[in-house]
Amino acid sequence: MRVTVWNEYRHEKQNPVVSGIYPEGIHAAVAAGLRANGVTDVRTVTLDDPDQGLPPDVLNGTDVLVWWGHRAHDEVSDALAAAVAARVNLGMGLVVLHSGHFSKPFKRLMGTECTVRWRADGELERIWTVDPAHPIAQGVPAYFELPREEMYGEPFEVPPPDELVFLSWFKGGEVFRSGCCYRRGRGRIFYFRPGHETFPTYHDATVCKVIANGVRWARPAVIEAGPMLNVKMPPIEAI
Amino acid sequence: MRVTVWNEYRHEKQNPVVSGIYPEGIHAAVAAGLRANGVTDVRTVTLDDPDQGLPPDVLNGTDVLVWWGHRAHDEVSDALAAAVAARVNLGMGLVVLHSGHFSKPFKRLMGTECTVRWRADGELERIWTVDPAHPIAQGVPAYFELPREEMYGEPFEVPPPDELVFLSWFKGGEVFRSGCCYRRGRGRIFYFRPGHETFPTYHDATVCKVIANGVRWARPAVIEAGPMLNVKMPPIEAI
Amino acid sequence: MRVTVWNEYRHEKQNPVVSGIYPEGIHAAVAAGLRANGVTDVRTVTLDDPDQGLPPDVLNGTDVLVWWGHRAHDEVSDALAAAVAARVNLGMGLVVLHSGHFSKPFKRLMGTECTVRWRADGELERIWTVDPAHPIAQGVPAYFELPREEMYGEPFEVPPPDELVFLSWFKGGEVFRSGCCYRRGRGRIFYFRPGHETFPTYHDATVCKVIANGVRWARPAVIEAGPMLNVKMPPIEAI
Amino acid sequence: MRVTVWNEYRHEKQNPVVSGIYPEGIHAAVAAGLRANGVTDVRTVTLDDPDQGLPPDVLNGTDVLVWWGHRAHDEVSDALAAAVAARVNLGMGLVVLHSGHFSKPFKRLMGTECTVRWRADGELERIWTVDPAHPIAQGVPAYFELPREEMYGEPFEVPPPDELVFLSWFKGGEVFRSGCCYRRGRGRIFYFRPGHETFPTYHDATVCKVIANGVRWARPAVIEAGPMLNVKMPPIEAI
Repeated sequence: MRVTVWNEYRHEKQNPVVSGIYPEGIHAAVAAGLRANGVTDVRTVTLDDPDQGLPPDVLNGTDVLVWWGHRAHDEVSDALAAAVAARVNLGMGLVVLHSGHFSKPFKRLMGTECTVRWRADGELERIWTVDPAHPIAQGVPAYFELPREEMYGEPFEVPPPDELVFLSWFKGGEVFRSGCCYRRGRGRIFYFRPGHETFPTYHDATVCKVIANGVRWARPAVIEAGPMLNVKMPPIEAI
Repeated sequence: MRVTVWNEYRHEKQNPVVSGIYPEGIHAAVAAGLRANGVTDVRTVTLDDPDQGLPPDVLNGTDVLVWWGHRAHDEVSDALAAAVAARVNLGMGLVVLHSGHFSKPFKRLMGTECTVRWRADGELERIWTVDPAHPIAQGVPAYFELPREEMYGEPFEVPPPDELVFLSWFKGGEVFRSGCCYRRGRGRIFYFRPGHETFPTYHDATVCKVIANGVRWARPAVIEAGPMLNVKMPPIEAI
Repeated sequence: MRVTVWNEYRHEKQNPVVSGIYPEGIHAAVAAGLRANGVTDVRTVTLDDPDQGLPPDVLNGTDVLVWWGHRAHDEVSDALAAAVAARVNLGMGLVVLHSGHFSKPFKRLMGTECTVRWRADGELERIWTVDPAHPIAQGVPAYFELPREEMYGEPFEVPPPDELVFLSWFKGGEVFRSGCCYRRGRGRIFYFRPGHETFPTYHDATVCKVIANGVRWARPAVIEAGPMLNVKMPPIEAI
Repeated sequence: MRVTVWNEYRHEKQNPVVSGIYPEGIHAAVAAGLRANGVTDVRTVTLDDPDQGLPPDVLNGTDVLVWWGHRAHDEVSDALAAAVAARVNLGMGLVVLHSGHFSKPFKRLMGTECTVRWRADGELERIWTVDPAHPIAQGVPAYFELPREEMYGEPFEVPPPDELVFLSWFKGGEVFRSGCCYRRGRGRIFYFRPGHETFPTYHDATVCKVIANGVRWARPAVIEAGPMLNVKMPPIEAI
């Protein structure tokens, strides 16, 4: 399983609070968390790399893509968003983190506006496991807490998830579907809510475990070689 | 649409706190809330009525059944539970309230244990509308509050709902899938969480609106006359 | 309920077989079928009308849009496809017919490739009602037949439908999920398979009934006035 | 993974056609097919064994149970059906074959009547893979054929499947949802349609592969030790 972690990597360059928490970038922390959970073949790329980090050989050599973006969603080219969505449809797994709910690839795959309520006050988030038997919940307790996080609240304008794994409770009074699974074409998508850049969320052991579980769950059995085609089909002779 | 509200009607006879809130019984309050929302053909029955309130002519004359039970689940006969489930499979709507999650008809229709976490401390519940376009959410705000309710927490051991309308936030720190829709056979089932007997939940206008919406949503287009049969079918000649 | 039937309207101008079957255009036949089933507020528009038939006042005055397109999908502007998808997310219903599976608005709302197998030999299609209690199946028999249709076969590369109403059997040996319901944002989408331009499918009474049922099912309770926004939300004071 | 194949094992003792096809019983053929696909820890039990084949130590030592029954559904005790359903809710996988759609454990877990149309004429069944990326479809072609099978037709009175993997086409003109996945409690259920006793279906290599895939898919990550309880929960102190 070849995993690529894509990070916008802008906050870390500009905001000393963020770079203090993630001196190597959020991508490095996410990759370290994956490796700590036994996912070994992990590379990282960023928006400011050539081809926005995902030239065809990298994208086509990725089995599961992890995506973190926030302020620069609009800078991601439509062509790249289309390429990512097309590869998911061929079988690639996609794990979308936090503000990636508003990224071009995710919105394209969902077909909805993907809006949320939010408040960046750094309040307590408690994440409940709704489906304890789900592969993504293995090793995750009945609930776990992040002492300071950005709040996201319902309604989350996404299609009804095919599988709902986690629900968040926020001290400020909101709830959120924080772990949502989708099957799209031949690929699988896992959205996981936590991860605001000003908090050390991706250093949390349970968060890292969930992301690793999500990557494993999204791993494709096989990825189709070429585009899906509308296929003209002759009559089946056996009939 | 002929609606029957079934109530266990035991707490109200034995606990002055409950009878103080619901002097005519919970069934009367639910029925009044339905009528206040334009559902006019409503009758009420209780566990201690003949045939446990649902003799065949009453059950077979019901389009949507509303169910409230708590401490006497075990007294409901298996035969009645089977009859209710069978009629749902033929098309009758079923609206299950609060502790009815543990009633025989609901458990039989779900096929799961239907367990929850709970705490009867009378704390603040805030109910969020997850699917604002759903018929059951019409006229319901983004969220509404019940100042004192029993807490139910996840995991709620039910099948993944076909449609999820509401999520609850509890001040004590839990979340719950509070408005769950199911299609079973030809019938529809709506589970709605609020309604502990020691709090005046069924006098709340929004709660009454939700129940009325749920009853309308669960209304059958048609109810099958007889039992579903495994049908032996001859070849279709036209082929 | 204001219904607009959008038709590409090209085959009818160029192919005498098609114009023989649909002298006023497919849109006229679909609109007549709706009216025959009691849907009275129906207008028709076509691709070659100004603004491709859907200027803002028409689109914004539409509660349910019916879409038929085939050979000119690429001519529909990306802006129009985006506007249609955005309005569905605000609550507008969308009924997509036959080859509209490959239209820009539908593909955008699905997030998948929407490909099928196909064969235009004009063979027998038998359409089975999988969910007889569904509103779209009301008045539709256990199965109905179209003596000559184009075949579409699985895999149909769409997201798992939220509700599956019909399955097709083709004499040539294929099956297809022919009646698929989706909820996207605040809107509802119904895809209905039959309707190849060289066959008189939209003159079939059962087909017309299904489309009318689909339009009624997709009718919004309310359509949001403006775009969904990521909303910054203050803490709820009551806590 | 400890797999137990339960077979009613009555037809094979009484009908020479069946015993000619399955001289060691259907259970032996299913177990052989599992072993041929790398599932090694397989035992077989039958209805006429002590405790109807599933004494507590056997049931509690089973990770995935495969069930074949037909004419003796009523002889299975209600207590055993309840025990099987309870263990599924704790995490055990269940693979239900063919006429097991009408078995007590399956009906109890579905909550519906589970009826079908049928015709035992031994006609061609073609099984289409609707979800080629599903784990249960790995190694299965776009379609495969069984030259002689019993027909099952829609409507299949089960809850909407959580995942639909296969659809059947029958030469006689019917369609059927032949591969249906459910999550119930902590366990997973896979229903697979083919397998009439008078045809050599369980000697077919693709059928065996599907059953083995289904068993692997249904394998639990963990099985809960005790029954699910309605749990009284104190307030979470950290709040």
